[in-house]
Amino acid sequence: MATSDHASIEAELVPFFNDLADAAGVIARHHFRTRIDFEQKDDLSPVTIADQGIERELRRRIEARFPDHGILGEEMGSTPGERYTWYLDPIDGTKSFISGMPLFGTLIALNDDREGCVVAGMIDMPALGERWYGTADGATFNGLPVSVSATTELAAAQIYTSSPDFFTPEDWQRYDTLSRKAMFRRFGGDCYQYGLLASGYCDLVVETSLKSFDFMALVPVIEGAGGIIRDWAGRPLDPSSDGRVIAAANEKLLEQALEVLDRA
Amino acid sequence: MATSDHASIEAELVPFFNDLADAAGVIARHHFRTRIDFEQKDDLSPVTIADQGIERELRRRIEARFPDHGILGEEMGSTPGERYTWYLDPIDGTKSFISGMPLFGTLIALNDDREGCVVAGMIDMPALGERWYGTADGATFNGLPVSVSATTELAAAQIYTSSPDFFTPEDWQRYDTLSRKAMFRRFGGDCYQYGLLASGYCDLVVETSLKSFDFMALVPVIEGAGGIIRDWAGRPLDPSSDGRVIAAANEKLLEQALEVLDRA
Repeated sequence: MATSDHASIEAELVPFFNDLADAAGVIARHHFRTRIDFEQKDDLSPVTIADQGIERELRRRIEARFPDHGILGEEMGSTPGERYTWYLDPIDGTKSFISGMPLFGTLIALNDDREGCVVAGMIDMPALGERWYGTADGATFNGLPVSVSATTELAAAQIYTSSPDFFTPEDWQRYDTLSRKAMFRRFGGDCYQYGLLASGYCDLVVETSLKSFDFMALVPVIEGAGGIIRDWAGRPLDPSSDGRVIAAANEKLLEQALEVLDRA
Repeated sequence: MATSDHASIEAELVPFFNDLADAAGVIARHHFRTRIDFEQKDDLSPVTIADQGIERELRRRIEARFPDHGILGEEMGSTPGERYTWYLDPIDGTKSFISGMPLFGTLIALNDDREGCVVAGMIDMPALGERWYGTADGATFNGLPVSVSATTELAAAQIYTSSPDFFTPEDWQRYDTLSRKAMFRRFGGDCYQYGLLASGYCDLVVETSLKSFDFMALVPVIEGAGGIIRDWAGRPLDPSSDGRVIAAANEKLLEQALEVLDRA
């Protein structure tokens, strides 16, 4: 039965996710804020080395523990499996990582392909020592329960996105209209902004151009904290979503935001 | 003699600046990530309480130690003094502070009004435990010497600004043209981006709309690390500068950037 399968796997997921993120963090911190030797032309960049090293290590651990699971990673493509698939973004926030900004993160998600739902997701910030983890049972920040803000009015909402550069001109127009109706907007959030939302510090996050390994981990963190995350048409996210993502503290806020996005 | 006056005051500045930033950090961290009780309508916001509390505490300490110095702070205006003036921004990055983002900082600068130069400046990041300090003798990060990057080509430069929203449309056009010639641009840097530049992690920072208490502290940090900071006309910054600031790892990079800003 699916439920008992879930229950049995969930019991061991917390320490396993923590082990994965710990291992990723060691590699990320090793390469973060190291300067490239500009004279060695063949050098791989620190982010490339870190990205590949982390994904290799996470894959090794997942394959050893769950050999029949599939894996989809940013760097090394897709390994098919049975029922469960892991989504891995070793370094989310490449520009941050390269430029010494500690807002890069490692994103890890486990999807139940049969039930069509994300079992668990993690946003880990190796340079900040901050970690969000979510399941259907709830979301935690560094092990302690978190919940979203109580803000229900768009005019009172704090809205985040990463960069205007990630939008098409048309989508930017829609986001611009939306974000100008909020209390304020801030840029440069990377994956961290979803953690801020789960912890109740900001109220809306809107992005485009995300890949499945970028957004799958966000779903249980946001929803475990009591929030809601959808595509711009208001549909639940799944691996085939188009990468336009909106996360909100609650349904009322989501509805106001979707209405503005839709009309703009 | 001005030089010996400087020497005598500089010797005691390091511990004094550290004490000021430590005191500011205690107050900032106390209010950071606290939620407002939305039912108490008369509540001051956490940022207001923190801003005012920090400036009051810094003024108290400066007045006790240097009673004849002037003070210019963001929250409590200007107190005239003799020869030396302190520039204080208790919480730089208000939106960050309000939304749980640890990129807010406390900026402290001491200006020698007679010589027309900034004696010392500090960028302190209370939520990150990161602190840059600069004088004519050099710049440090958490007590260790730092220096800017060796990047001299605009096409290889990593460029930061805080938000498109801080530019006039015309200035944005100029920044947009410039930043598209760089290797990449990133938003959301707050005062932290100047620390990243001093430490050699990014290469260019360009902003507008800064006040004297925002930019005075940056000057000795950037220049102590070997970089250069000017207004958009290439002039050194002083308290009456117009708030359009460009910081670069070196003169060659500055010249290329100013040329683009000028032509755009």
